[in-house]
Amino acid sequence: MARPKNDTFLRALLRQPVDYTPVWLMRQAGRYLPEYCETRKRAGSFLSLCKNPRLACEVTLQPLARYNLDAAILFSDILTVPDAMGLGLYFAEGEGPKFERPLREEWAIRDLAAPDPHAHLRYVMDAVSEIRRALDGTVPLIGFSGSPFTLACYMVEGGGSEDFRTVKTMLFDRPDLLHRILDVTARAVADYLNAQIESGAQAVMIFDTWGGALPGWAYQEFSLAYLRRIVDELIRERDGERVPVIAFTKGGGQWLESIAAIGVDAVGLDWTTDLGEARRRIGDRVALQGNLDPVALFASPEGVARETRRVLESFGAHGPHSGHVFNLGHGISQFTPPERVSVLVDTVHQFSRRFHGGAPAPAGSD
Amino acid sequence: MARPKNDTFLRALLRQPVDYTPVWLMRQAGRYLPEYCETRKRAGSFLSLCKNPRLACEVTLQPLARYNLDAAILFSDILTVPDAMGLGLYFAEGEGPKFERPLREEWAIRDLAAPDPHAHLRYVMDAVSEIRRALDGTVPLIGFSGSPFTLACYMVEGGGSEDFRTVKTMLFDRPDLLHRILDVTARAVADYLNAQIESGAQAVMIFDTWGGALPGWAYQEFSLAYLRRIVDELIRERDGERVPVIAFTKGGGQWLESIAAIGVDAVGLDWTTDLGEARRRIGDRVALQGNLDPVALFASPEGVARETRRVLESFGAHGPHSGHVFNLGHGISQFTPPERVSVLVDTVHQFSRRFHGGAPAPAGSD
Repeated sequence: MARPKNDTFLRALLRQPVDYTPVWLMRQAGRYLPEYCETRKRAGSFLSLCKNPRLACEVTLQPLARYNLDAAILFSDILTVPDAMGLGLYFAEGEGPKFERPLREEWAIRDLAAPDPHAHLRYVMDAVSEIRRALDGTVPLIGFSGSPFTLACYMVEGGGSEDFRTVKTMLFDRPDLLHRILDVTARAVADYLNAQIESGAQAVMIFDTWGGALPGWAYQEFSLAYLRRIVDELIRERDGERVPVIAFTKGGGQWLESIAAIGVDAVGLDWTTDLGEARRRIGDRVALQGNLDPVALFASPEGVARETRRVLESFGAHGPHSGHVFNLGHGISQFTPPERVSVLVDTVHQFSRRFHGGAPAPAGSD
Repeated sequence: MARPKNDTFLRALLRQPVDYTPVWLMRQAGRYLPEYCETRKRAGSFLSLCKNPRLACEVTLQPLARYNLDAAILFSDILTVPDAMGLGLYFAEGEGPKFERPLREEWAIRDLAAPDPHAHLRYVMDAVSEIRRALDGTVPLIGFSGSPFTLACYMVEGGGSEDFRTVKTMLFDRPDLLHRILDVTARAVADYLNAQIESGAQAVMIFDTWGGALPGWAYQEFSLAYLRRIVDELIRERDGERVPVIAFTKGGGQWLESIAAIGVDAVGLDWTTDLGEARRRIGDRVALQGNLDPVALFASPEGVARETRRVLESFGAHGPHSGHVFNLGHGISQFTPPERVSVLVDTVHQFSRRFHGGAPAPAGSD
């Protein structure tokens, strides 16, 4: 397994020189694409789509057919892991994910066990292998998982929540129980990501969607500590190639230094954090990924191009050991006009060249 | 108008020595109190309650009758200002605030004008006067307003929003129109707060609930710049007493230094920011207000006491020019058990004494 023909994404994550800034988008295979909606309809439901390797492969490739993206990301859902733990994932129409058996009783928490990903999440591994075959060495494939705290939010709440009252009450009153859930879930996530790497994922990303809802001290103890443990256990080299790891805590802008210190190759940033400021804070240790406001894709084509350039400018001229992967600061909205994504991708590729190659960027030019 | 008998809150905001840390809670007069629900039922609706000075005074005083709070805050809604601008505020059952006439057309934005608060928001000024009379010099009364950007979010979206797509699209495509709205709204907010001060408010707070949803550069340009303009125009002394100003941007933890630089006396913090860290960053310039996670009030009484102590400990021992006002990091939840608030208030008053008076706090004691 050699490097893909286009390895710009992997090089940027490893802070190696590149000619332009690579780009992919969180949730790039999704509902804003009519062809995705068509495949999903054929699958019958979102969950059947996730569990069908052939269709998961099909939707993974759809955005790459439309746009000149520098990476593919496995199509799946972060809640497949708790589903494999037996919680009974389902999607109520218009209500988001739910669990039939939320984790609240002490006995159920004591009984919780990490699933064998090769057995209980076989469909994910099959999708990874199938996507790798279909990509045929063009661009790298990203595997992913939710963070233990983010998964625990859904597992304890039984679905989405506005204030995470149930899981936070457990945190305050029975931290031992929450730690038990996080401990098992961290084991499960490490095994799951390693299985994805063994099946062909060339980089992995951990999505900590809800860690930013915690007080700072609790973020360290209940989210970041488990991210660190996972990173420690990941396969970091496969077939002679480094497998980069990206950690993304939405709302984690206050904690960048501590996120950069857990051993990851790159840190994802939401759209509130200034990239230049983040680079000054942690850019000598990790690559940065992000961070256009997803809502900027609702602007006019000129507006999309301007806001895309603004993100590239905020990172600034690259040095010999800087790394930036362009992305949104959160998943793309289902209501995004698909043609705006072309503007974004083309602007990144064209405009970013001036920031690479060692020549200083002409001030104010575009 | 002398200082109130209990001026601990005002002294803490001005970073003057106090014997204990004063406490009040955002949304302390609200739905978690059965007596509030009873008065609201009598008023007929939330909006009738806001617009009836006698009943607004009644609910303002209710939490003070239950708890040993160090300040009262005017009972009102941040959307009274756009309502007075003619947008037609209403509350759809279970849906939150809505406007009959959202601000989207260029002609309507050009026609927007700041209302005379003494005429169009007379009911608020009457409530302020009535509350001051009823308080009878016991504790100070806080006046408040929403920030221009936060008000603009509701005005342009026509209600609440998950992603602020309409107002942000205006920001990206027609920043001139959004600046026009913010300009008029900043004028309206400054007039409104000054009228509250003239009617008897002894401190004022500006709630920037949605500024934290912006990219950093846009926060500076579209939210903070207008906060600064308002602060510049506020009456800062009344009857020989300083009128302190508090600014609170939810999700603004990354931008504390710039918030502290706009001329406010105090900066409000949400629960994600570590108070000790905030103190190191800006505590030499402003007082800090916050920041217990509102969800901590769902913990057991022991848990509430422990988390309350944790916040006090994170601020640490007071010096001669430090200021801390205890509060939640966001408004109290309507589902909060009222008896938990007693635990919080009593813990603040008792446990905080060791941090004042110059004596170092005994390590680890409680």
